[in-house]
Amino acid sequence: MTDRIQLAHGGGGRMMRELIEREIVPRFGGGADGLPDAATLGEAGGPILFTTDAFVVQPLEFPGGTLGRLAVHGTVNDLAVCGAAPRWLSLALVLEEGLPLDTLRRLLDDARDAAAECAVRVVTGDTKVVPHGQCDGAYAVTAGIGVALGFDLGPDRIRPGDRVLASGTLGDHGMAVMAAREPLGFETGPQSDTAPLHRLVAALVPFGPAIRFMRDPTRGGTAAVLNEIAGQRRVEIVLREEDLPVAPATQAVAEMLGFDVLNSASEGRVILVCAAEAAEPVLDTWRRLPHGGGAAAIGTVASEGGGRVALEMETGGRRLVDVPHGELLPRIC
Amino acid sequence: MTDRIQLAHGGGGRMMRELIEREIVPRFGGGADGLPDAATLGEAGGPILFTTDAFVVQPLEFPGGTLGRLAVHGTVNDLAVCGAAPRWLSLALVLEEGLPLDTLRRLLDDARDAAAECAVRVVTGDTKVVPHGQCDGAYAVTAGIGVALGFDLGPDRIRPGDRVLASGTLGDHGMAVMAAREPLGFETGPQSDTAPLHRLVAALVPFGPAIRFMRDPTRGGTAAVLNEIAGQRRVEIVLREEDLPVAPATQAVAEMLGFDVLNSASEGRVILVCAAEAAEPVLDTWRRLPHGGGAAAIGTVASEGGGRVALEMETGGRRLVDVPHGELLPRIC
Repeated sequence: MTDRIQLAHGGGGRMMRELIEREIVPRFGGGADGLPDAATLGEAGGPILFTTDAFVVQPLEFPGGTLGRLAVHGTVNDLAVCGAAPRWLSLALVLEEGLPLDTLRRLLDDARDAAAECAVRVVTGDTKVVPHGQCDGAYAVTAGIGVALGFDLGPDRIRPGDRVLASGTLGDHGMAVMAAREPLGFETGPQSDTAPLHRLVAALVPFGPAIRFMRDPTRGGTAAVLNEIAGQRRVEIVLREEDLPVAPATQAVAEMLGFDVLNSASEGRVILVCAAEAAEPVLDTWRRLPHGGGAAAIGTVASEGGGRVALEMETGGRRLVDVPHGELLPRIC
Repeated sequence: MTDRIQLAHGGGGRMMRELIEREIVPRFGGGADGLPDAATLGEAGGPILFTTDAFVVQPLEFPGGTLGRLAVHGTVNDLAVCGAAPRWLSLALVLEEGLPLDTLRRLLDDARDAAAECAVRVVTGDTKVVPHGQCDGAYAVTAGIGVALGFDLGPDRIRPGDRVLASGTLGDHGMAVMAAREPLGFETGPQSDTAPLHRLVAALVPFGPAIRFMRDPTRGGTAAVLNEIAGQRRVEIVLREEDLPVAPATQAVAEMLGFDVLNSASEGRVILVCAAEAAEPVLDTWRRLPHGGGAAAIGTVASEGGGRVALEMETGGRRLVDVPHGELLPRIC
């Protein structure tokens, strides 16, 4: 085997079989039947949820994570915030001819480790190779199946007076990737927050109907999530600037790039809406868990009508928090 | 909305929401909750199977099919040949900046129609856009969940004396795509066989344990499937050249390109191993079904030992049917 990916690694012949047997099966193929075309999972043991995400992040490795880690966390987190315990993942790769095999190995190691931390199994996959110049290193697509935890979630369950919580600092992933692309001269730049959210979600089951809505603020950031809620539910959501948890390095990069942290993607945070009386107990629960140490209350569902998100500034004023029209951060995830 | 895909269509802002609301939801979002991040599927009603496939076929549209159709059939067929009734699909797209929206619409129309024919629902998805030159038009990744039909399949169930069947002509897809890339001067070139196999498989449930093994001969073709069986089960498989169903246009292109039809991909065929006494009844069943009209017995499991595939030539000789080392047909699926 050479030290770079060749077209033959995706061709269905011996080289492809060798790649799979040497690099994929040892990392993911724990079952007796290896990694068959379709994995037999048995009974799910409850209502199932299903999701998919494509990952085209550039660079493939960035402070705090890699494409491999992100691809596992992204799908785990979509399942988690929709109220499911993630169980099984698929992993499809589109590789560019010429990708160093060592890079691929690091991405796969990271995906394996991330899956192990989440207690999910990567049970099936596919690998395609395209000629040099028809991909940018590697793209990854995961799909995931989870089993419902019994939440009843949705924007329609949100009431005026509810609280908006964040499980940690906002927008770190987006700023970490941007800083990795163009060295900005910081000694300590922002770190991606990429992390699994399954524990933070599972810990909320006892709160029952006090939990109204959860979402992970990826593309579009916190602003996109809250505007979607406000628009669908026709409520006004008011954030307080002094309450927003923002890491100093993330704030610094955002200011340098002229970017609003509220529009920057997180890959390991929950934005939660809950009944007011549940806010402190939820924060207390989260802060004891991995990836929940920086949890904070960031705002309130103020009133019926409006359908918008406002930010009360530390300087005393108020401004609207809007959704960007288009693409501010291409290939952030 | 402009007439081409822009980076902003993948950015998480308004343009992305518009693209999804105008082009994706009307085609796939039949449910009350549209197309959420994770789709709630309810109880599967039996043991589930899970698979994924990435599709990077070039060109995006070819005689007999498109990327959209292929992406649905490929995953439906992986589930089917592993013995499941396909139920739910996810669809993730990586789009190249500049892709004509009309092309995307045709691909999505085709995916919708293919899913409808298979009675599967596309319940969740994701769309990413990468800058011009970092993809070649569009790549698609589907994952699928099916419910086990109760087969007990595997190479270990194969016995000497078993028969090898094909559900139709071999290698059409690979040759159709190759002919579409480089006009070869044929008036009527080969047509892709891309088609769903779920009906052909479901019809075999009554045959019970007489059905030993099924596989769809995609990358690597019939030769790869049979060599895998022969190698794992340590049997010799003997094919008879005069029994191989090959479309004349496919044969002509294969000869012109110096390519063996047994190495060319199909995307709508089953290679089946069954007990000898089931062979004729299975062929009879298949020939009455859509996409099974050209079913044929193509060979026999000859003996224990060997682990190879031989072809009895019409001219009287015998040759080994081998697996190509690497990539003969890049981006065939």
